[in-house]
Amino acid sequence: MGEKDEKNEIKKVIGPDVFTSTEADEAENEKDLGLLISLIEDKKALKLREFVASHDPIDIAYLINDMTEESDVVYLFKTVPNQYTADIFSYLDPDQQEKIVKAFTNKEVQSLISSMANDDIADFVEELPSNLVSKVLSNTSPDDRKEINSLLNYKEDTAGSIMTSEYVSIKDKCSAKEAIDKIKQFGKEAETISTTFVVDQTRKLVGALSLDDLIFADETVQVDSIMDNDCVSVVADTDQEDVAKLMKKYDLTVIPVIDKEQRMLGIITIDDILDVIENEQNEDLARMAAINPDDFQADYLKTNVWKLSKARIPWLLFLMISDTFTELIINSFETSIAQIPVLSVFIPMLMDTGGNAGGQTTTVVTRALSLNQISFRDIGKVFFKEFRVSVIVGLLCATVNFGWICFEFAIGLIKNTATAPSGMNYNSYIIAGFVALTSFFVIVFSKSIGSVLPLIAKKVKLDPAITAGPIITSIVDTCSLIIYFLLAEIIFAIYGVK
Amino acid sequence: MGEKDEKNEIKKVIGPDVFTSTEADEAENEKDLGLLISLIEDKKALKLREFVASHDPIDIAYLINDMTEESDVVYLFKTVPNQYTADIFSYLDPDQQEKIVKAFTNKEVQSLISSMANDDIADFVEELPSNLVSKVLSNTSPDDRKEINSLLNYKEDTAGSIMTSEYVSIKDKCSAKEAIDKIKQFGKEAETISTTFVVDQTRKLVGALSLDDLIFADETVQVDSIMDNDCVSVVADTDQEDVAKLMKKYDLTVIPVIDKEQRMLGIITIDDILDVIENEQNEDLARMAAINPDDFQADYLKTNVWKLSKARIPWLLFLMISDTFTELIINSFETSIAQIPVLSVFIPMLMDTGGNAGGQTTTVVTRALSLNQISFRDIGKVFFKEFRVSVIVGLLCATVNFGWICFEFAIGLIKNTATAPSGMNYNSYIIAGFVALTSFFVIVFSKSIGSVLPLIAKKVKLDPAITAGPIITSIVDTCSLIIYFLLAEIIFAIYGVK
Repeated sequence: MGEKDEKNEIKKVIGPDVFTSTEADEAENEKDLGLLISLIEDKKALKLREFVASHDPIDIAYLINDMTEESDVVYLFKTVPNQYTADIFSYLDPDQQEKIVKAFTNKEVQSLISSMANDDIADFVEELPSNLVSKVLSNTSPDDRKEINSLLNYKEDTAGSIMTSEYVSIKDKCSAKEAIDKIKQFGKEAETISTTFVVDQTRKLVGALSLDDLIFADETVQVDSIMDNDCVSVVADTDQEDVAKLMKKYDLTVIPVIDKEQRMLGIITIDDILDVIENEQNEDLARMAAINPDDFQADYLKTNVWKLSKARIPWLLFLMISDTFTELIINSFETSIAQIPVLSVFIPMLMDTGGNAGGQTTTVVTRALSLNQISFRDIGKVFFKEFRVSVIVGLLCATVNFGWICFEFAIGLIKNTATAPSGMNYNSYIIAGFVALTSFFVIVFSKSIGSVLPLIAKKVKLDPAITAGPIITSIVDTCSLIIYFLLAEIIFAIYGVK
Repeated sequence: MGEKDEKNEIKKVIGPDVFTSTEADEAENEKDLGLLISLIEDKKALKLREFVASHDPIDIAYLINDMTEESDVVYLFKTVPNQYTADIFSYLDPDQQEKIVKAFTNKEVQSLISSMANDDIADFVEELPSNLVSKVLSNTSPDDRKEINSLLNYKEDTAGSIMTSEYVSIKDKCSAKEAIDKIKQFGKEAETISTTFVVDQTRKLVGALSLDDLIFADETVQVDSIMDNDCVSVVADTDQEDVAKLMKKYDLTVIPVIDKEQRMLGIITIDDILDVIENEQNEDLARMAAINPDDFQADYLKTNVWKLSKARIPWLLFLMISDTFTELIINSFETSIAQIPVLSVFIPMLMDTGGNAGGQTTTVVTRALSLNQISFRDIGKVFFKEFRVSVIVGLLCATVNFGWICFEFAIGLIKNTATAPSGMNYNSYIIAGFVALTSFFVIVFSKSIGSVLPLIAKKVKLDPAITAGPIITSIVDTCSLIIYFLLAEIIFAIYGVK
């Protein structure tokens, strides 16, 4: 690519970046990645700096995450000034961050992280192998190190662990002008200044102050008269999912974190909450799909086959072994099956129907739980509701099932006489009626048990989503078979089997 | 409750509202709801106004959503001034909004909606029965009506349908001081002013201007020299899920919406995007659980039994009927099962294992697709990766399965001779080996097909999540049985059956 083309390329990306479609975005990224790598490999330092400066740091981070050559990544970080790379660095995948820290000298590490926010440093240190942690921490100032360590000390998944201490706090008795001056002085370091928080002399949170209100206010007015004194806050050990729910409920872009004495500790901004929501969603999906959630986070194409396998084996084995119950039940009814072989034909259909019916209920109840629409004390209401639903759904499905099975027998799709050792011609209508009756009971049973399982899981501090997937299927499979063979005794009695 | 208690109650809630736990929050809400209803039913208008004024409008809306008496809701809305109720109204459930519009006179409707933002009006009009729509629209000013209608005209789920036209735009050639003055003048009406957007003479978007930068800037500087001219924007027909992804990727709290000529149309703020993310998550969950997503949105306890049933019947019936294939397969192998009944014992375990193994893969691939980590052209890579994973997982599971079945036979948990009509004593190791071999093939097959299904679904414009639930289970069930009975032919050959 000639120098002239290159220049055009760089100019083009300046100006508003309009998103039109995912495909266009992907093609653009691929072109940019190719250009970036060629700039690096041709050692065009000046053009490289220009390219990085003219792109959003997040875009550059995404491109670097797709680079496979370690030397390319390191060259870029050594060539481009810190004012750009510090920001880019905090958006990199942990493995790319690790490569850079490894390749950098102490001095280079120091100058890189000096421009980073302390909560971003804490986030990336958490993912780092311990030998590199000390390399990073020894290159921060004592004050920063103290703060990073305290951020690292909050329990995982709490408000404290995701908050930042880079915010501006305003004293309640100062004037609007003093507040604006303080924001002008310290605001550059803060994560957000669109809302600042007002504290009294003892550092207790007393209200929130939006920049909007502040710039509309008279310069001499005291901030405690224009602040919102009914602002929502969380204590540091609040679960991050509860923080997400609160911010969503109250349409907040920032929420203050306080200690038990209501003293201000930090703030949580909406961008950190989007990650929480996504992680929570991923966890539920993983649980419903019988995968270990911790192994479900990384980039798919970059995760190696062993790691993917490891995430899947434990649950698959557990569920396989738990099917021993179904084996025992069928084994104990083998004699009857041998007498009326057509009975075995409907086992998969009944098991699937039970699993699906139960899964619908556990999913609906789990969702209602996670949206705080219901809690454990509603267990009676939920059970009664699902019971009525199951009767309606069961009656309809059983009726259709009866008609369909009669039809299958009538047109000879399924033959019910062919192989019975006794040579008896069982009445198709009785078989169809019996299977339909079973499907009714299986649906009622699956939905009823499915309605209480998530509530019980929540009560004993398990993730309710765990019941919404394969667990309900396994339980219902076993129970469906028991229902089937218990009802079959009636058929056996009619035909005098055994 | 005496007057004195009431006063304390009202005072208490002023001041920062600290969230500690979901239970405490719920108890608080229940107390507040009781208090609110008693204020309404005792017709204490003054106290009622005080109560509403001292609480967050969102909290009041949540309390009203839990009220069952229509007259209570209407009394509150007629008693409390519009400055409070307009805000509360926009957070109400559609059915409560409908009750109020029905009970209100034209004049009351007019004064209520006069304080509402146009996009909020459009949102609630969308949910309203048509006779009430005209009641609302006839009470808006011609200008507002035009804007509401244009908002209603954007295709559902696009950027245009969720954007608001209440924003402040700044001309590129004006000074920082002029910009601040314009924000002071028009900012009160805007949804956000923390970021404003800069347009040229032809209304084309040229950049974004953060309030932070603006207040730090020299008063005389021209805005186009301090604006971010590399801001991200979307066109009006961009899918709202893509908007959510972009805002998440770039940590944005607001994004501008433009037309094909890059002219500014409106903005989308992060609070609307949180709803999009939640809806998307709900849709995926519903699809995975075989429920119609449209019927999955409402409050669980308030949805009646018929509606809940209606949402579940179609998929359940479809999946039940599609199990006809499993019925046909077992039916055609009935003779063999009658000869070696122990074969039927392992059918549920093999079917479950196949469903679980396939479900793991479809879920992982669906998630990677939704995070844009992979696209259709990666189909080869994904298939090969999952194939290798399936061989590892399959080998391990088959080995454990073999050991476990041998153990079951050895300790007599499962009897393989009891009921065979021929009285033959089949070799347990051969049976165990055959079942284990089947489980290996079932896992490899399920994961391989599961790796391509979501990609194909996406290619033909279906939601990939649809494959991650019961669909893969149904396909895999049928195929597992085919694999099982094909392999069984080998066993039959060994024992000379048929």
